[in-house]
Amino acid sequence: MQNFIYHNPTKIIFGTGTIGNIGSETVPFSQKVLYVYGKSSIKKNGVYDQTTASLEKAGVKRVEFGGVSANPLLSHTRQGIEIACRENVGAIVAVGGGSVIDEAKAIAAGAVAQNDVWEFYNRSGMTITNALPLLTVLTMSATGTEMNGNTVITNEETKQKLGVGSPFLYPKTSILDPTTLVSVPPDQTAYGAVDAVTHLLESYFTASDDFTPIQDRYVEGIVRTITEIAETMQKKPDDLTARSTFMWAATLAWNGLAPSGVGSWSTPNHLIGHSMSALYNTPHGASLSITLSGWMPWYAEQSEENKKRLNQLGLEVFNDTATIDRFRQWFHSIKSPTKLEDIGVDDAGLTRIAANIAENAPLWGIPEYSAGLCESILKRCR
Amino acid sequence: MQNFIYHNPTKIIFGTGTIGNIGSETVPFSQKVLYVYGKSSIKKNGVYDQTTASLEKAGVKRVEFGGVSANPLLSHTRQGIEIACRENVGAIVAVGGGSVIDEAKAIAAGAVAQNDVWEFYNRSGMTITNALPLLTVLTMSATGTEMNGNTVITNEETKQKLGVGSPFLYPKTSILDPTTLVSVPPDQTAYGAVDAVTHLLESYFTASDDFTPIQDRYVEGIVRTITEIAETMQKKPDDLTARSTFMWAATLAWNGLAPSGVGSWSTPNHLIGHSMSALYNTPHGASLSITLSGWMPWYAEQSEENKKRLNQLGLEVFNDTATIDRFRQWFHSIKSPTKLEDIGVDDAGLTRIAANIAENAPLWGIPEYSAGLCESILKRCR
Repeated sequence: MQNFIYHNPTKIIFGTGTIGNIGSETVPFSQKVLYVYGKSSIKKNGVYDQTTASLEKAGVKRVEFGGVSANPLLSHTRQGIEIACRENVGAIVAVGGGSVIDEAKAIAAGAVAQNDVWEFYNRSGMTITNALPLLTVLTMSATGTEMNGNTVITNEETKQKLGVGSPFLYPKTSILDPTTLVSVPPDQTAYGAVDAVTHLLESYFTASDDFTPIQDRYVEGIVRTITEIAETMQKKPDDLTARSTFMWAATLAWNGLAPSGVGSWSTPNHLIGHSMSALYNTPHGASLSITLSGWMPWYAEQSEENKKRLNQLGLEVFNDTATIDRFRQWFHSIKSPTKLEDIGVDDAGLTRIAANIAENAPLWGIPEYSAGLCESILKRCR
Repeated sequence: MQNFIYHNPTKIIFGTGTIGNIGSETVPFSQKVLYVYGKSSIKKNGVYDQTTASLEKAGVKRVEFGGVSANPLLSHTRQGIEIACRENVGAIVAVGGGSVIDEAKAIAAGAVAQNDVWEFYNRSGMTITNALPLLTVLTMSATGTEMNGNTVITNEETKQKLGVGSPFLYPKTSILDPTTLVSVPPDQTAYGAVDAVTHLLESYFTASDDFTPIQDRYVEGIVRTITEIAETMQKKPDDLTARSTFMWAATLAWNGLAPSGVGSWSTPNHLIGHSMSALYNTPHGASLSITLSGWMPWYAEQSEENKKRLNQLGLEVFNDTATIDRFRQWFHSIKSPTKLEDIGVDDAGLTRIAANIAENAPLWGIPEYSAGLCESILKRCR
């Protein structure tokens, strides 16, 4: 086990009927908030009505800022920062999925910064030193952003999708009501499950320490649970047992516990997937099932230790050492793509993605992912 | 999955060479602290020197308050409160194991309260509404108190060992340096391992929800790890790989994650063990291996569901459904007692313990543990 610091102060309020707490949770931070959301879904499923009623009952004024897109955009983020500053809000309430919360984090940091917000993302050397308090109501589980200090946004001008983390970006409170997931469609449900599984596997595969039984069992246990229940969520969308289990699983998948103590580690699958999303607007989870389907075979070829690790994962998750096949079968069963052609990427596109990955790899701390290496990995995704 | 709130704001600084951070971590809270510790062990193993040097370097004055005993006493706690008030300290630094930290929490709450501190423990209706900030340097892993809001102390007059929890009692920072565990003797090492395992099993066995795969895998994974490494810690006391793995395992065992979402649950094994400790001054972990050895057979007899749950636990932890036998074998292998006679309790003592348990059971929320039932369970511990 290696040295680490773990500090996750986010308060989680979990369960059916908990959305009405957003008002009273917000009051200690501010009486006026920027209310950030996405498209129309929260107006259809009742979450908009529940959250706004709760805020109003608690006497919290809101300035609405909707229109956050999947793979949230820098330009829209800058608009949000401008409104937050102009309206002098004291906190941010984000109501939505990972994209909404990630953009809300960017606005929270940007609204109190002197510099342009993108400088926090592009490794210019600028560090986040403060942020508006953020509270969230989660309506789609996948990214784990509701219980961490990370945010990822896309610069549509430079075609870069980059992330940053800061202790100032942990939400103060996140409300996780599994009934909000009932209206998540089957494809988004699948992508969320793949995203959460990939989060867990990044440190599992790349850790520098080779004796991490606690972290291994933690990862294997949550991956096993997600693979067991994902299809149920698609076939019975209103099965709250499955939805609530997944909701907590996805949060635990990326709240910092899995990699704590494993030494240095990296996120190559996210690096690769982000380039697919940045260039093809591929849904995040879809890009990851394609990436994992090619990255795992490449990883297995690198060493006997890697093969053993894959075997261990397969045994613990599927009771089967044919780990890669089992993951591909699982992706197929939930209809998440496993090949570049599934998202319309031809060989020219493959080369383009590889170049984009290689450009970003140094910013992600893994410069060894050169264009050549990435082409070789991506060819396994065909 | 059932509704829950999870909010654990303790900052964990984990690893070798981290003790020197205590000074800089303390500064934001106060320049004058009550420095709480136990007997002489921290002066022998160098932790006293390291912590005091770090505090001095950071300009933090300390008022020393030593002499905390295993199963910390109310009378000693009251002395600490008096000194904290008289010296007007702004924070508490606890350096030691679970007993030292638990008493430090009691002092932290008592020092800012108008009432006597025992009223927080004896279910008088008094609630903790504030406490001095607490920072800890852990030197013996077992109770998990370094990352939760719980404290247990013993009233030597009433022979009651009672606990209380409060959001105000979470340490601000806990420093976990596994090198401090190297000097923990084999018996205390065993008792710590048993305590951590028992923490995990309480909610596992008593949860009201019957579909909790995430929590099940979490518990099984950590129990498996502890049972795999405990003997190594005894045979190779300076094996830092084993010590560090156990140190984090014990913290995760009782930081609130295992029972989050499992519905209502209780701690019958701790209830029973606490009465043994209160009457016989039995080390906490020793009382728990005796209790579990008798409680699990009783539990198995109550229903087919219970038998299935024990089978599942055995399969995941030992790859064997002879769960109770395997736990007893494990207790033997690490020399933790499994029978009342091992701690000198005869049949009259058994009756006395049962009466004490029944007296406390309503305060623990499990009034069904009557004297008769407890005698019947304790007879299985013979």
